[in-house]
Amino acid sequence: MEALKSRGKLPQGFRVGTSTFTFSPAELANRKASMTLTLLALDNPTSTFAALFTTNAFPGAPVLVGRKRLANSPALQAVIINNKISNVCAPNGVAASESLCEGAAKALGLSSPTLVLPCSTGIIGWGLPVQDMVAAIPATKAALQGDSILAAAKGICTTDLYPKVRSALLPGGARIVGIAKGAGMVEPGLATMLVYILTDAVMTAEELRGAVGAAVGPTFNSLSIDSDMSTSDTLVALSSNAVPLAASTGRSSAIAEFTSTLTSLCAALSEDIVRNGEGVAHVIRVNVTGSPTLALARAVGKSIVNSPLFKCAVAGNDPNVGRLVAAIGKCVGSLPKESTEGVAMEKISLTMGGRTIFSNGVFALNPETEAALVKHLKEAQLWGKFFLSRLCGA
Amino acid sequence: MEALKSRGKLPQGFRVGTSTFTFSPAELANRKASMTLTLLALDNPTSTFAALFTTNAFPGAPVLVGRKRLANSPALQAVIINNKISNVCAPNGVAASESLCEGAAKALGLSSPTLVLPCSTGIIGWGLPVQDMVAAIPATKAALQGDSILAAAKGICTTDLYPKVRSALLPGGARIVGIAKGAGMVEPGLATMLVYILTDAVMTAEELRGAVGAAVGPTFNSLSIDSDMSTSDTLVALSSNAVPLAASTGRSSAIAEFTSTLTSLCAALSEDIVRNGEGVAHVIRVNVTGSPTLALARAVGKSIVNSPLFKCAVAGNDPNVGRLVAAIGKCVGSLPKESTEGVAMEKISLTMGGRTIFSNGVFALNPETEAALVKHLKEAQLWGKFFLSRLCGA
Repeated sequence: MEALKSRGKLPQGFRVGTSTFTFSPAELANRKASMTLTLLALDNPTSTFAALFTTNAFPGAPVLVGRKRLANSPALQAVIINNKISNVCAPNGVAASESLCEGAAKALGLSSPTLVLPCSTGIIGWGLPVQDMVAAIPATKAALQGDSILAAAKGICTTDLYPKVRSALLPGGARIVGIAKGAGMVEPGLATMLVYILTDAVMTAEELRGAVGAAVGPTFNSLSIDSDMSTSDTLVALSSNAVPLAASTGRSSAIAEFTSTLTSLCAALSEDIVRNGEGVAHVIRVNVTGSPTLALARAVGKSIVNSPLFKCAVAGNDPNVGRLVAAIGKCVGSLPKESTEGVAMEKISLTMGGRTIFSNGVFALNPETEAALVKHLKEAQLWGKFFLSRLCGA
Repeated sequence: MEALKSRGKLPQGFRVGTSTFTFSPAELANRKASMTLTLLALDNPTSTFAALFTTNAFPGAPVLVGRKRLANSPALQAVIINNKISNVCAPNGVAASESLCEGAAKALGLSSPTLVLPCSTGIIGWGLPVQDMVAAIPATKAALQGDSILAAAKGICTTDLYPKVRSALLPGGARIVGIAKGAGMVEPGLATMLVYILTDAVMTAEELRGAVGAAVGPTFNSLSIDSDMSTSDTLVALSSNAVPLAASTGRSSAIAEFTSTLTSLCAALSEDIVRNGEGVAHVIRVNVTGSPTLALARAVGKSIVNSPLFKCAVAGNDPNVGRLVAAIGKCVGSLPKESTEGVAMEKISLTMGGRTIFSNGVFALNPETEAALVKHLKEAQLWGKFFLSRLCGA
């Protein structure tokens, strides 16, 4: 964990703390559950913040409160996050999230609960144990430290196998550190399950929001684990505005550099999330070239990585490439005509593992290619036979 | 099989025959494969035929030829079908399908190969062994009989566990019999993998096409097994025009009765297909009520039955109903605004196994409901623990 710890060095002006407790969920008879509360706090309120939320039409209560903060709060000073229960469509869900903000604001001595943004992740359908959670806030506050974000990266995990932390240094000494949580119900519609980006780079809210908007398209919004969109997807970015960006070549190029660095960081977190997906044994990368539009390229890529039959073939190291072609044809055939103008199906070629398998609309298969694809898939497998035999209890 | 045999009694004017042979696929080194050729033949050419095909943008060669027949052939007299290889994007695929039509026309003594419609199902990516297939046509013709369709229902199977045959009698004595094939790569976009509807009811092509168009919407086009659309989906309906429809109440009501009977028959075949889906252990029926449009109701239903996480929960007899809510929210949140006008998410209620689990946008869960849902799912399971333990090799 040492590498993650040094990678997780907090930018100036931030502290994080967590605490874990057990409670009795109302939905379960005679069973206990464990929850971790995570606080991200700034030394001072900041107006430089950005947030993106799920497009799911049944958003969690914290998403509803978060959208309110984004629209109405001139500044933020803390984020309070819990795992275990996502607080979606639960009775009095919004009141529960607001109570946590009040508790956090009181413990941190903030002037208003609207300085706090709440997040919840975990089981959909259960209600939050608000009393237990409010009671755990003082211990969470007492754990605050300004050294590393690692405790928070662990604190927000649910079915994740490991914490996900990425960081970057900018010219001039400003720092960006990001953490992410997400292993299942992951096909983000704006951001992934939970992502927090902390930076000390001096920026306006507009600059930060622009950079975040540009960074999520080719990263979080281009990944999928299981094609199911979460009700709780939230990305929050905060700056403490402590370290000026080097601006030798002007403001716009400094912001472009920040955006590009942030995009790389988000791409690394996206790959961390996919590699850690529930049951994931292969990571599929789809490169689409020559598409008339970016939207069509992304739709085709998503259709491939979300095809259950193609994913089964890859998981079984069986190059059933007909499923790949069917997934592309399903996507192109299902879109409105105006989205696929200029697409010549008879000119499509496909490579897999560096090998041509389909050329100008016609398959190019033979026993040697099939054997090479099997070898390629086996070599790309993240988990070996040992894991699969354990999974089946053999 | 006796019940299927009597259910499969052929309408007047039809004969079917099959033959099975082995061949050496060019794509496999030193391995043999087995293929069944199926012929559906009419005693006389008929202009009363209908056909629907996949909307996949990489359709198989037989689909391309079938579309040509539908557009240009004034009449059909035979269908030639093979399993094992689907002839999709294979080199010279269309020429291969046309060769089979020529071979069948010659063996049957027909005036033109355009009286024959070809169909192929099976592995995508391989080429047809045309020579072996043409050589098998005489044996297939020799097997023609006018008794039962059962041989054809078996002949078109690939990974299906059993043949699928449904029939109906109309007032006046006309008969409809339908067979279907499909176990994997099944989310039809017009029809399912392969469906053949034979009838001796006297009708025009327009009347038959109208009835087929009306019947597939609520049946084949509302089912999904694995959400992957086939490149070979084909439905063909043929009438020998031998038995007049009873028309005591006028032509339009006789056609309405035919359409309603055909729709019931297609619904029964659809259920046969879903129950026989690859790996299917539960059949999920979604009833959507109060939707502003039929299209939205179907989209929501499809989003639920195609949610991998909800399907995993059902397969595991674990009522993780949050996944149900997430699937609905994903669908409604992803559609353009004009498609979801009039939808009040806060008024949505859900029942499962007859029990309310979600009321006016809020979950209604407790330990007793959770236990009842587990019991409901276990009772609805098609296969028991024995099958699952065999699947994992334990």
